[in-house]
Amino acid sequence: MRTLSEFVFGSPLPTARLESERLNKTRALAALSPDALSSIAYANQEIFLGLAVAGAVALAYSWSIALAITGLLLVLAMSYSQTLYAYPSGGGSYTVAKENLGPSPGLVAAGALLIDYVLTAAVSLTAGVAAIASAFPVLWLYRVPVALLLLLVITIANLRGVREAGTVMTVPVYLFLFAFGGMLVAGFALAAQQGPGSYSEAPAVTPMTTTLLLHTFAAGCTALTGIEAISNGITVFRPPVSRNASRTLWTMALLMGALFLGSIGLTHYLAVYPQGAETILSALARTVLGTSPAYFLVQGATLLILAVAANTSFAGFPRVASVLAHDRYLPHQFEHLGDRLVYTNGMLVLAGLTGLLIVVFGGDSHALIPLFAVGVFMAFTLSQAGMVVHWFKLRGPQWRLKALANGVGAVVTSATFLIVAVSKFAEGAWIVLVLIPAMAIIFRRINMHYKEVAKELTLRGLPPSLRPLPKPRLVIPISGVHRGVIEAVRYAQSVSDRITAVYVETEPGAAERTRQEWERWELDIPLDIVPSPYRSIIGPLLEYLDGEDTHHNDGQQATVVLPEFVPAHWWQALLHNQTAFLLKLALVYRRRRLGHARPVIDVPYYLRD
Amino acid sequence: MRTLSEFVFGSPLPTARLESERLNKTRALAALSPDALSSIAYANQEIFLGLAVAGAVALAYSWSIALAITGLLLVLAMSYSQTLYAYPSGGGSYTVAKENLGPSPGLVAAGALLIDYVLTAAVSLTAGVAAIASAFPVLWLYRVPVALLLLLVITIANLRGVREAGTVMTVPVYLFLFAFGGMLVAGFALAAQQGPGSYSEAPAVTPMTTTLLLHTFAAGCTALTGIEAISNGITVFRPPVSRNASRTLWTMALLMGALFLGSIGLTHYLAVYPQGAETILSALARTVLGTSPAYFLVQGATLLILAVAANTSFAGFPRVASVLAHDRYLPHQFEHLGDRLVYTNGMLVLAGLTGLLIVVFGGDSHALIPLFAVGVFMAFTLSQAGMVVHWFKLRGPQWRLKALANGVGAVVTSATFLIVAVSKFAEGAWIVLVLIPAMAIIFRRINMHYKEVAKELTLRGLPPSLRPLPKPRLVIPISGVHRGVIEAVRYAQSVSDRITAVYVETEPGAAERTRQEWERWELDIPLDIVPSPYRSIIGPLLEYLDGEDTHHNDGQQATVVLPEFVPAHWWQALLHNQTAFLLKLALVYRRRRLGHARPVIDVPYYLRD
Repeated sequence: MRTLSEFVFGSPLPTARLESERLNKTRALAALSPDALSSIAYANQEIFLGLAVAGAVALAYSWSIALAITGLLLVLAMSYSQTLYAYPSGGGSYTVAKENLGPSPGLVAAGALLIDYVLTAAVSLTAGVAAIASAFPVLWLYRVPVALLLLLVITIANLRGVREAGTVMTVPVYLFLFAFGGMLVAGFALAAQQGPGSYSEAPAVTPMTTTLLLHTFAAGCTALTGIEAISNGITVFRPPVSRNASRTLWTMALLMGALFLGSIGLTHYLAVYPQGAETILSALARTVLGTSPAYFLVQGATLLILAVAANTSFAGFPRVASVLAHDRYLPHQFEHLGDRLVYTNGMLVLAGLTGLLIVVFGGDSHALIPLFAVGVFMAFTLSQAGMVVHWFKLRGPQWRLKALANGVGAVVTSATFLIVAVSKFAEGAWIVLVLIPAMAIIFRRINMHYKEVAKELTLRGLPPSLRPLPKPRLVIPISGVHRGVIEAVRYAQSVSDRITAVYVETEPGAAERTRQEWERWELDIPLDIVPSPYRSIIGPLLEYLDGEDTHHNDGQQATVVLPEFVPAHWWQALLHNQTAFLLKLALVYRRRRLGHARPVIDVPYYLRD
Repeated sequence: MRTLSEFVFGSPLPTARLESERLNKTRALAALSPDALSSIAYANQEIFLGLAVAGAVALAYSWSIALAITGLLLVLAMSYSQTLYAYPSGGGSYTVAKENLGPSPGLVAAGALLIDYVLTAAVSLTAGVAAIASAFPVLWLYRVPVALLLLLVITIANLRGVREAGTVMTVPVYLFLFAFGGMLVAGFALAAQQGPGSYSEAPAVTPMTTTLLLHTFAAGCTALTGIEAISNGITVFRPPVSRNASRTLWTMALLMGALFLGSIGLTHYLAVYPQGAETILSALARTVLGTSPAYFLVQGATLLILAVAANTSFAGFPRVASVLAHDRYLPHQFEHLGDRLVYTNGMLVLAGLTGLLIVVFGGDSHALIPLFAVGVFMAFTLSQAGMVVHWFKLRGPQWRLKALANGVGAVVTSATFLIVAVSKFAEGAWIVLVLIPAMAIIFRRINMHYKEVAKELTLRGLPPSLRPLPKPRLVIPISGVHRGVIEAVRYAQSVSDRITAVYVETEPGAAERTRQEWERWELDIPLDIVPSPYRSIIGPLLEYLDGEDTHHNDGQQATVVLPEFVPAHWWQALLHNQTAFLLKLALVYRRRRLGHARPVIDVPYYLRD
């Protein structure tokens, strides 16, 4: 098993190998922007699907919606660039909200963040499968298995410890910028030559309403997901950290804006309408490039950048989980690095939840989107509101201006949050709106438990020298007289001289045979017989042990000595009643009335094959 | 939990309640015939589906096939009635094959039997769902969940301990005979009045061939499943056991033959052709009765008798498993009665496998049929061949005649077995043909393991008084200095004076703090530090323990004393590293080079909430 595991996941790495590599702006952009840049793949799709139901007239609104969202993008970029200066050592929503608004908003932000990482992975993977299935329609049938396969590959790569900032990760980002940007340029040329198109199809099934418009705007806001990645990952930048990060943020925002407005504008101008199940971006690329190798390159690059975007969740989710675990809000299994210097447990939980979402939502990114934007904008709002409070507390130079900038951000994002929450409520946003506070409550409960345990375990108040315990009373449950039992008896004799054996009689008459064998062996240890008319072993045994303790009345609980067979092969364990194992569980987990522990001594007996 | 479990499964029953109730012939027929009588539900369907592909001409062959199968039925009835006289205390295929042909054929028969019980349950339930979905077509969509729900109800009823022979079980059988028999009579009246029908549909997609005919015959042979139930369950009859059983067998065979020939003949004469997804029996009932209450009664009665047929597997499978476990061919968890006086483990395994088959084969009895007949006819053949050998060995009065009768049975069933195995091979029979010998091999391996263990555990050869063991060396792995550790140390001090504590340092610098706290406590126990550059705990600890044993060179393996937190609620266990549990597994299951056992002492520490 060791070797198989090492083959798949790589051999262990020592702690000393952990060092943080600082990146230049080009590589930092590649490392932190895939989530943001790839958002257009599903945002454009959502805007199209949202408007198409109201026909060609409604599709004309796509440009206005795109402009509104780009406006939001600029507000967010401005707002977040201030966070970069205020929190040069990492300003995730959890940190900013906790430090400025208090622990509860911090935990709400943390819950929203964790959910968003899972949704980023699920939406990116399913949108990636949609991109490639648009090129190869047979894949629509296998969207769930294909998405799960991608997830598996990404999970294994991350468990091995893929570098988020590795050179190989820069390829998909720049390939996408090159392919998609090239397609847009070709599209502009085509548009200049052909003039505007007109929709030959696009029948309306509902009238155009403000509700429909807000609904589409809400779905289109998923274009903005990922913008916070730079403030989360700021520690990868070289000094001057804040300035480099801020420049990268603006570069990313401008690229996002250009790709988003360019693709939406071109789609609208050329009156692109998808055929069959293909995505709107695929339809655009096919209109511009025909079904040529260039078209397949664009679709392939879209799949790749979406896969890399899913990959960023594998950096973000375990990191947030580790911070929460460090603050004692999550089980401490999430806190520490595994033997490949990655947060193994966080990654496994992320992969499991992502896979679950993909399966439950049938591999359809459109079905997942309503859950997505609501959590993102909740985290945005808490982060921006936290920044406003930050400036009010700090009052540095020009603090009023800075507070105003973040204040605008907070107002805009909270308004968007409300639009998204209301218009997508019934389609799935309610799930997230229930989950986030539930998670905050669970974080609190976990924290309380750890504090309670720490208080219980402290040695403060314990007298420096405790009265020594008397020799324990030992009870050996036996299932017959054989070598395993003899080993247990010899071991028991080496630690105490107060020993009793006990036999639970499940078949009438069996006890007498066992007693005769026991006496033949002359062990000089009394054998008690416990009748069990209902044929169960554990219940009568526990009652016997309690009875013995009461009878001896020495304030002690008898120690149970368990003779246990250990077979040569794991499958052989199925061939033996797991009574010893079940008994141990019952002994350890049945809380004792007396509040004392009942120790258990396992004496294994190894079976040769 | 106890109360919930008692509510669902009933309270425990004492062994003394176990008594065998003898039945009169009417109730014995009801108890033992559902499997056989209900077979027509799928056999007719298979014959229709097999021939329909070759159109109306081919459907004319259904009558000939039905006659051939009824001929087989008579041979089997004759053959099995001899088994009833030869094995009045129970003549299942396993017993007959083992006693007369030797252990290997016996195990093959046993494997075939176990597989057949699972398939009987799966085929009966899915055919039952098909019967009711023919009446209520919306159920076709939910055939898997409906079949699983039926399975769950039957499983719970059986775990509570439903009496196979209970009065409630006789209702579905006689209801079915009444409803289905009545339908046939009404059908004959209709046929007499209308004269023969002709197929207006029934287009041929393949030509009629001998292969197709044999193929359909093979599928139709599933009509014969269940005929062996009376020889398996013979112990329920009142004396004279063999004569009563034989009469019941003949009654059952005649009823089977009448229902089978009657329904096939009528279907053919009236040229019944199903509409949509409905079964052929449903189409027949609808033709005769219209979509009337009487029609729904027939479909409901068909579902009920099929459910009761599935129920018979819950009596048969655990009984065979118990016999095999008693002979040490299956794990002995299958041998004994649970606290409701039923073979709980056997039932759970049967239910799990049946559910798996239903899910994997999409709730479609037609897909399961190719697996079904092959195992049944293998068991028939082995049983009949065993009877031939039996007569040759015994040589009672008229033994030649009896051997001839069983010999005819053996030849006919083995020929049928070959036809079924070949013609259904690619459709799924191969699975069973691989599984049966595989199971026989597994039974052998299990048997060898138990024999080996018995030899190892015997006290024979052990000197009557063994040299006492010296006081054990104790090692206490600690994760810090807290009350749990102090409890473990106190317990360790009460059983030995050779104690060492050990701390695995996964973070640089942590050891020094722990050492200072340890020394402040003045326990007078040395603390060893084990560095762990790869941050894992269990590996370095195991190496340390091995090193200590080598170092002391006293032929002893140190005992590990584990301080273990037991939280107040089970979910809190998730909040603590399960290091103690994993370490215990590693200690017990890592086989020791030295061949000795390393005992483990658990000292639980109970956390208040």
